[in-house]
Amino acid sequence: MGRVTERRRVVRIRDGVVSARADTLVAEEPLEIRLNGKPLAITMRTPGDDFALAAGFLVSEGVLAEAGDLVNIVYCAGATVDGGNTYNVVDVRTSPEVVVPDITLERNVYTTSSCGLCGKASLDAVRTTARWGITDDPPVRIDVRLLSQLPERLRAGQRVFERTGGLHAAALFSEEGELLDLREDVGRHNAVDKIVGRALQEGLLPLSRCVLMVSGRASFELAQKAVMAGIPVLAAVSAPSSLAVDLAEETGLTLVGFLRGESMNVYAGVERVLAGVEVSRG
Amino acid sequence: MGRVTERRRVVRIRDGVVSARADTLVAEEPLEIRLNGKPLAITMRTPGDDFALAAGFLVSEGVLAEAGDLVNIVYCAGATVDGGNTYNVVDVRTSPEVVVPDITLERNVYTTSSCGLCGKASLDAVRTTARWGITDDPPVRIDVRLLSQLPERLRAGQRVFERTGGLHAAALFSEEGELLDLREDVGRHNAVDKIVGRALQEGLLPLSRCVLMVSGRASFELAQKAVMAGIPVLAAVSAPSSLAVDLAEETGLTLVGFLRGESMNVYAGVERVLAGVEVSRG
Repeated sequence: MGRVTERRRVVRIRDGVVSARADTLVAEEPLEIRLNGKPLAITMRTPGDDFALAAGFLVSEGVLAEAGDLVNIVYCAGATVDGGNTYNVVDVRTSPEVVVPDITLERNVYTTSSCGLCGKASLDAVRTTARWGITDDPPVRIDVRLLSQLPERLRAGQRVFERTGGLHAAALFSEEGELLDLREDVGRHNAVDKIVGRALQEGLLPLSRCVLMVSGRASFELAQKAVMAGIPVLAAVSAPSSLAVDLAEETGLTLVGFLRGESMNVYAGVERVLAGVEVSRG
Repeated sequence: MGRVTERRRVVRIRDGVVSARADTLVAEEPLEIRLNGKPLAITMRTPGDDFALAAGFLVSEGVLAEAGDLVNIVYCAGATVDGGNTYNVVDVRTSPEVVVPDITLERNVYTTSSCGLCGKASLDAVRTTARWGITDDPPVRIDVRLLSQLPERLRAGQRVFERTGGLHAAALFSEEGELLDLREDVGRHNAVDKIVGRALQEGLLPLSRCVLMVSGRASFELAQKAVMAGIPVLAAVSAPSSLAVDLAEETGLTLVGFLRGESMNVYAGVERVLAGVEVSRG
């Protein structure tokens, strides 16, 4: 546990000079998530916050929606190598009221019907499984100047990245710009799951007055996770995909991309960012 | 098919000036991969090269290793929405000699035993399923100067990235530095699968005289894909994870990270990069 980084020997080449030294790397290990004892998914993740990761994953998949849905989460006692617990298998026990879907969940995956898989089906799956959705009332208002500060504050909070250069990060901010949580992981989806899972454990879902900021790109999967947690604003340092924009439009999510200093693109839900501002046709 | 990019309306904010315009986004759609008619995995990908993606995925999973293992790949005729083929479901038919594993494959996942999941188990799984492994003889030699040119050449070849800013990329180079293939995708693992799958289809596996260059980080999964295709050198623009380095050391893969101009870190297999060079202790 707590193996967030590991040391390895590395040969460095700088301007023709070769040297050997010890280097700090981000740790990556598999995590198996079980639901009421039944294996459900495996993800490669950076160890730490594993219970939050498992809980958040199950929020994204529509299994959990509030603290009461969760009985407890434990490391599997039987998951041992050479007699020691690997701390790589967690079991999530849900309350009897929780409907456990009879599907094979896979990372990035919704139930696959025998035919007709398409982007539209992916959007429909989010809508039918979402217990929260985007329901901020009155609507969250995020000033452009506040948004423009978030990438720098995300980066400033990345303590493991500073040492390894090897992590994705996600941060949760209040609508006033207060940093509420920040997680780092080799997988961006894991960083978001850790944030959402902790919020579930603390009884804070839906996160209807919050902004989620992620390093890198905004994929469909990340937009899905924001929607499932009821987060009304998702901001990313880089580009969104077409399907992420489609999902944002359909669910009312505000999606900001290429957020770099004072520049940004708003792909959906512009009213939360530019309430009352006249938009010219460029 | 061929929906590599899509157009969406975007509100741009630049130095306080707000304008609306059409923007080009990278397309993202689900792809279901079936093996002899049985659903196996779903991945979110950029449409295009879907047969290569499916073939490469199955190389990574140890199901396919040479062109003769493959009978054909087709878009599922029954996969329709509103009467039209979605082109999002492919079926891979294998020759009778191919042993189809009796496991639920998931993205990033190996068979999960009832206990003992750990990084070591992930490494073992690669070793036991690899039909090729790293077997370059005589060993590939990649000059530092040649390596230092690859990021720039990868970026120069990213035609879709130029328009969308939203893709990962992977490129295959010969040991002499010739660009053999380059693929872009919303998922880096998909870009690598497309390269490996096409090589399989053309009877080129193992790729034992090649260098694989990827944008972004070097995760365990990407190192695994290189090893399964017999590629002896993997170079990444950013940091590797601990488990990627462990796999490289165990299999003899040369792993280069933080490859930026004349600077780079060599985490494993340094002999292919610095044959005969004295390495000082820094």
